[in-house]
Amino acid sequence: MAAKTERLGVRLRPHIKTHKCIEIGRMQVERGAAGITVSTLEEAAAFVEAGFNDLTWAFPIIINRLEEVRDLAQRATLRVLVDSVEAVRALEALATPLHVFMKVDCGYGRAGVEPTSSAALEIPRRLSESPTLRFDGLLTHSGHAYSAQGRDAMLAVAMEERDAVVGLAERLDAEGIETPQRSVGSTPAMSVAEDLEGITEARPGNYALYDQMQVALGSCEPADCAATVLTSVVSSHARGSVCDAGALALSKDRGLGEPSSDGRIYADYESGALEATAMLSGLSQEHGKLETRFPVGERLRILPNHSCLTVACFDRFFVLRGEKVVDEWRIHRER
Amino acid sequence: MAAKTERLGVRLRPHIKTHKCIEIGRMQVERGAAGITVSTLEEAAAFVEAGFNDLTWAFPIIINRLEEVRDLAQRATLRVLVDSVEAVRALEALATPLHVFMKVDCGYGRAGVEPTSSAALEIPRRLSESPTLRFDGLLTHSGHAYSAQGRDAMLAVAMEERDAVVGLAERLDAEGIETPQRSVGSTPAMSVAEDLEGITEARPGNYALYDQMQVALGSCEPADCAATVLTSVVSSHARGSVCDAGALALSKDRGLGEPSSDGRIYADYESGALEATAMLSGLSQEHGKLETRFPVGERLRILPNHSCLTVACFDRFFVLRGEKVVDEWRIHRER
Repeated sequence: MAAKTERLGVRLRPHIKTHKCIEIGRMQVERGAAGITVSTLEEAAAFVEAGFNDLTWAFPIIINRLEEVRDLAQRATLRVLVDSVEAVRALEALATPLHVFMKVDCGYGRAGVEPTSSAALEIPRRLSESPTLRFDGLLTHSGHAYSAQGRDAMLAVAMEERDAVVGLAERLDAEGIETPQRSVGSTPAMSVAEDLEGITEARPGNYALYDQMQVALGSCEPADCAATVLTSVVSSHARGSVCDAGALALSKDRGLGEPSSDGRIYADYESGALEATAMLSGLSQEHGKLETRFPVGERLRILPNHSCLTVACFDRFFVLRGEKVVDEWRIHRER
Repeated sequence: MAAKTERLGVRLRPHIKTHKCIEIGRMQVERGAAGITVSTLEEAAAFVEAGFNDLTWAFPIIINRLEEVRDLAQRATLRVLVDSVEAVRALEALATPLHVFMKVDCGYGRAGVEPTSSAALEIPRRLSESPTLRFDGLLTHSGHAYSAQGRDAMLAVAMEERDAVVGLAERLDAEGIETPQRSVGSTPAMSVAEDLEGITEARPGNYALYDQMQVALGSCEPADCAATVLTSVVSSHARGSVCDAGALALSKDRGLGEPSSDGRIYADYESGALEATAMLSGLSQEHGKLETRFPVGERLRILPNHSCLTVACFDRFFVLRGEKVVDEWRIHRER
């Protein structure tokens, strides 16, 4: 991803919500990442504590938690997001210097202002005229790339994302408002994007670990996936087996389509046997149901549907080189 | 539940996987619980550390983790489960005194031996003849009560559960094998059971907190639910709102049926306004999507679909009396 963003002429600000891990964040910075993106104040605090000094909190600011924002902003460059005039007003009342992005909806339909709305002009104007706030620019997230069917559809989403931000930046320019940063990013959109003219930075996160969902989307191959869950078979019957990885080890995220898949088993994942040998057919709190019969005691590695949610089930990564555990890295999932 | 099990003449051994909280476990013991049930060795270790001395680990024994079992069994009465001859053999090889249940499948189709199979006789015989193992009896879990439609269907599951265990105990008795304990339990089955003749203990767990799924099943009313997630609205648009409780605050468990429901909002939950005022229509990692428009900054309480999985997203409960936080209780979700 570092090579790809360099080729596209944009800075890489990886989203660390996927791994919540200081060591992986440092590897990303060593490979050229210009700062990081976080999803929570807990992640921000952990990474600031570890010395990271340029963070974008890519979540609409929670106006009930501004004291924590002020504290963190005194220790590092913390860039926050707004998509409402109410939030701008709350930040103005905080009377603390802050970098502020406006979040734009590029078609995903979750958070963000409509690029053609009046708020899309009013908020940047207010931010650029504020004595304490600094308008960092426009930021969007192409979450709908995850539901795009095929490479062409995914490319269309990536271009929609770029055009939403670049188009609004031109509109602001015509109004005399400068847009220093134009930030986009999702792992699937970045996997297909070939032209990010007008964009200054990208914020993909999942690529650090990848998962079954990205394999299904075509963003990567199974061998690119870095995180698996080690499990033991605990019960074996004519109808199948049960393993000790349930919903609290894998999350209930079923990924894309495939309604009967709760995860995939790669029995010989490390050696390059990239065909899934079995599927999880059901997950309860601690039980994973397999339709394939494996012997009791057999160890299996499960490639999760969605690594971001699976990683957050654990306190640490066991770092493998081959089959040998060479390190343990903490996962900062505090809440 | 303590009153109900007393009326039915069975001991209550609550499953603490729902709350993973020492303080709640103590309240259950004070109200008459005879020991507790756990789902993981991590839960077992935390509760033994806190002084609980009679625990059933209601999960097919993980034969790769027997050293931990031995350590815990030296500090407390730890009752373990088997449903295979392989597991019995591994426990025999451990050469440590252990209480062992045989897990029986009563129709749920997850783990457990078929009550009519030859293994259903062979395993208890082996356990009762072992010099180190003590055959504690039969244990089953009516997880399929969660998919029963209506009270009659749920009652049928509760009776199926009872009969599977009692029937097999009679078969063992005819073979000269005594079955000291006959253990059943799920919160929905216990909510309807009126006759547990032949059963000695019940292991419901969810009743300690309840949740939207139990409301939908008819096990309880919204006012009986003890755990909600406090959230703030962070984004508000014509199409709805976004709050700061996403999949990592609520889990992706969609509960029963209702494919569009990721959780329910009770805007005035505490005061007895028991009608849900809004529904969550989508969950990503940190974002909850609401189809209702609430103002930015509004605080809402979400009744989760499945409290067991939601609680495991957090490190602590904030204990409320009215709107006042009177205590904080740790949630032992280590993994």
